Amino acid sequence: MDGIAASTYQCSVARTVEVVGERWTMLILREAFLGVKRFDHIQRDLGIARNILSDRLGKLVDQGILEKRRYSERPPRFEYRLTAKGRDLYPIVVTLMQWGDKYTAPDGAPVELTHIECGQITQPQLTCDCCGKPVHALNVRPVAGPGLRADAA
Amino acid sequence: MDGIAASTYQCSVARTVEVVGERWTMLILREAFLGVKRFDHIQRDLGIARNILSDRLGKLVDQGILEKRRYSERPPRFEYRLTAKGRDLYPIVVTLMQWGDKYTAPDGAPVELTHIECGQITQPQLTCDCCGKPVHALNVRPVAGPGLRADAA
Repeated sequence: MDGIAASTYQCSVARTVEVVGERWTMLILREAFLGVKRFDHIQRDLGIARNILSDRLGKLVDQGILEKRRYSERPPRFEYRLTAKGRDLYPIVVTLMQWGDKYTAPDGAPVELTHIECGQITQPQLTCDCCGKPVHALNVRPVAGPGLRADAA
Repeated sequence: MDGIAASTYQCSVARTVEVVGERWTMLILREAFLGVKRFDHIQRDLGIARNILSDRLGKLVDQGILEKRRYSERPPRFEYRLTAKGRDLYPIVVTLMQWGDKYTAPDGAPVELTHIECGQITQPQLTCDCCGKPVHALNVRPVAGPGLRADAA
């Protein structure tokens, strides 16, 4: 256990937090998943300073998480779309939202998700890709993976 | 859509990021889920300054995410255990880890998870609690929930 915990720099949690752990960055991603793509609309929704928004969007483009596209020539205006790499952040956004709904939303969830395939309001849950049963903190055991063994070699 | 996006302050993502979005806080939680509970062990694993660790642990205790217990009288020493509210953060840690494994770990996952119920290495996935099928960015539609309607009333 200690052997796993000691290797902070190989930790995928740490690496992801480095990329998306900043508060504005996560809120910009939330906007993207809600379909808000244009600089001015994001700026208005979040009440964020334009220079900070510009900086954070630039970093997300550099990381390959957002793609910048011009949607108007005059004046030049841009929108930012999630790439496949960006869309793969969705489970993080959903699980952040669910915890917030449970513990910080006394009036109930501000946003709910309709699962298009079945048409129901869904409460997504983490399930095992082998047996299909729920995965939670008390029924998994962390073990050293190939990335840790490669480093030890 | 705009109506949903505009309400940053009722957003459960934003509220959760306020609680756990800080880099050290998330790494302390990762330690907790790996079973590392003692101040000195966390401090050693993360290489974090003692005053910062003390501050972050105190905030997590105040939030009801960790519980502080004395495990030695002389010298007085403490350990920090996840509460039920803290254990409910596990899906966030898992989804952060999975994205990092996919995009930031060229040698493979540093840590893998064995699902105790089936004994297999698991790649947990988000599935719908109604139909059991996967939930991802392209097959859900956000709708206003009771928390948003309560605020509008």
